[in-house]
Amino acid sequence: MSGWVRIAGLGPGNPNKITPEVDAALADATDVVGYIPYVARVAPRDGLTLHASDNRVEIDRSQHALQMAADGRRVVVVSSGDPGVFAMAAAVFEAVENGPPAWRELEISVLPGITAMLAAAARAGAPLGHDFCTINLSDNLKPWALIEKRLRLAAEADFAMAFYNPRSASRPEGFERTLDILREVCGPQRLILFARAVSTPEETLNVTTLGQATPEMADMRTMVIVGSSATRKIERTGTPIVYTPRSVPE
Amino acid sequence: MSGWVRIAGLGPGNPNKITPEVDAALADATDVVGYIPYVARVAPRDGLTLHASDNRVEIDRSQHALQMAADGRRVVVVSSGDPGVFAMAAAVFEAVENGPPAWRELEISVLPGITAMLAAAARAGAPLGHDFCTINLSDNLKPWALIEKRLRLAAEADFAMAFYNPRSASRPEGFERTLDILREVCGPQRLILFARAVSTPEETLNVTTLGQATPEMADMRTMVIVGSSATRKIERTGTPIVYTPRSVPE
Repeated sequence: MSGWVRIAGLGPGNPNKITPEVDAALADATDVVGYIPYVARVAPRDGLTLHASDNRVEIDRSQHALQMAADGRRVVVVSSGDPGVFAMAAAVFEAVENGPPAWRELEISVLPGITAMLAAAARAGAPLGHDFCTINLSDNLKPWALIEKRLRLAAEADFAMAFYNPRSASRPEGFERTLDILREVCGPQRLILFARAVSTPEETLNVTTLGQATPEMADMRTMVIVGSSATRKIERTGTPIVYTPRSVPE
Repeated sequence: MSGWVRIAGLGPGNPNKITPEVDAALADATDVVGYIPYVARVAPRDGLTLHASDNRVEIDRSQHALQMAADGRRVVVVSSGDPGVFAMAAAVFEAVENGPPAWRELEISVLPGITAMLAAAARAGAPLGHDFCTINLSDNLKPWALIEKRLRLAAEADFAMAFYNPRSASRPEGFERTLDILREVCGPQRLILFARAVSTPEETLNVTTLGQATPEMADMRTMVIVGSSATRKIERTGTPIVYTPRSVPE
């Protein structure tokens, strides 16, 4: 029997946003590997071993998955959202590149999922309906200076921006600096939205402006989306709709 | 009976990448509206009227959908990929903003889908595993000067880049200019991949460098992804894996 690794996206939370392809991989797996809260989203069954591990051990987890596949097991590595966006796919390929040559010949595939920024954008309207950029605000794995450089260039390019991991409990100051930089470059009227735990029972959505935004509006379960200069708000009963038009006039 | 509009993403092509939420909306709809090839992906059934229309009539189509919902019908507007990424969601909200006030109070929701860049990235490995930007290369709805400005700033920010609509038959010169600019700013060794018709029987994947890339490698069914300076290639039997590591050293 030949083993495989499928790196699968579980989407933002609600099972109605998990693709049939991912469900089929889980149904066919012998082992599921992932961060504790994501593995908890997989239903236990006979013949399936769940291997839940803590945060920040992504390479150990990847090596474990690859070794099991090399031993003939059928392994699903789960991520929330899409595995290719600030999630497990890059970690698995890092482990492949630095691992034994045989791992390169394993059957490894990535099964895309609904990533958090697109779930959040859908909930709000269409803020990413024109050109945009996607930045991980955590400085765990890159220097803060690079984040700041990217923020300033993205604002100059007039991209809408989606921010993952905006504010950790241990290092909340980065998001405060992000808001300061964006207020300086984009002005206080620029639209910003905070979408927390989209598609779960804890979902909240807050549409405001950079001038009104405060760092406490975000935590690690929040997607933050900042509009481009063209992003607009449609008022109606309840939360307004936020969207970025498709056209930029000459 | 109260009507609604659901703007739904059909994913890149294979039905195994359509979420159950989108299937449920289609099952509950009275009408489906969209561009001809996307409506063709919806199975006909009794009680469901399919309204297929040509490209470039997005606002007419949106107004039609909104008017039907105002008349009590249950309307799904279909896009390929994700409706919020260069697709129908922004067009519908544009029609809402410019339409009669009653349209603002309609039940309108966006159901996310697997967008082309994430399906292409998954197929190739994890080229969008770190910060990236997403640009529509068509200059139908924006000036070419803005595209060029964004390309240069995105390269300076060292984003990986995903390009939608890289090369139309009527205006192929834009993509040639894009390659020239990127070669100048990023150098000839930078990785680029061309993923065509991902998840369909016509799927092809071509991994090369800017120095080797030619404009003819792309058409309107191709997603083009250009790596950042950190993007790497893992050679193995068959197509190599392309991924962008999670870390940027200090």
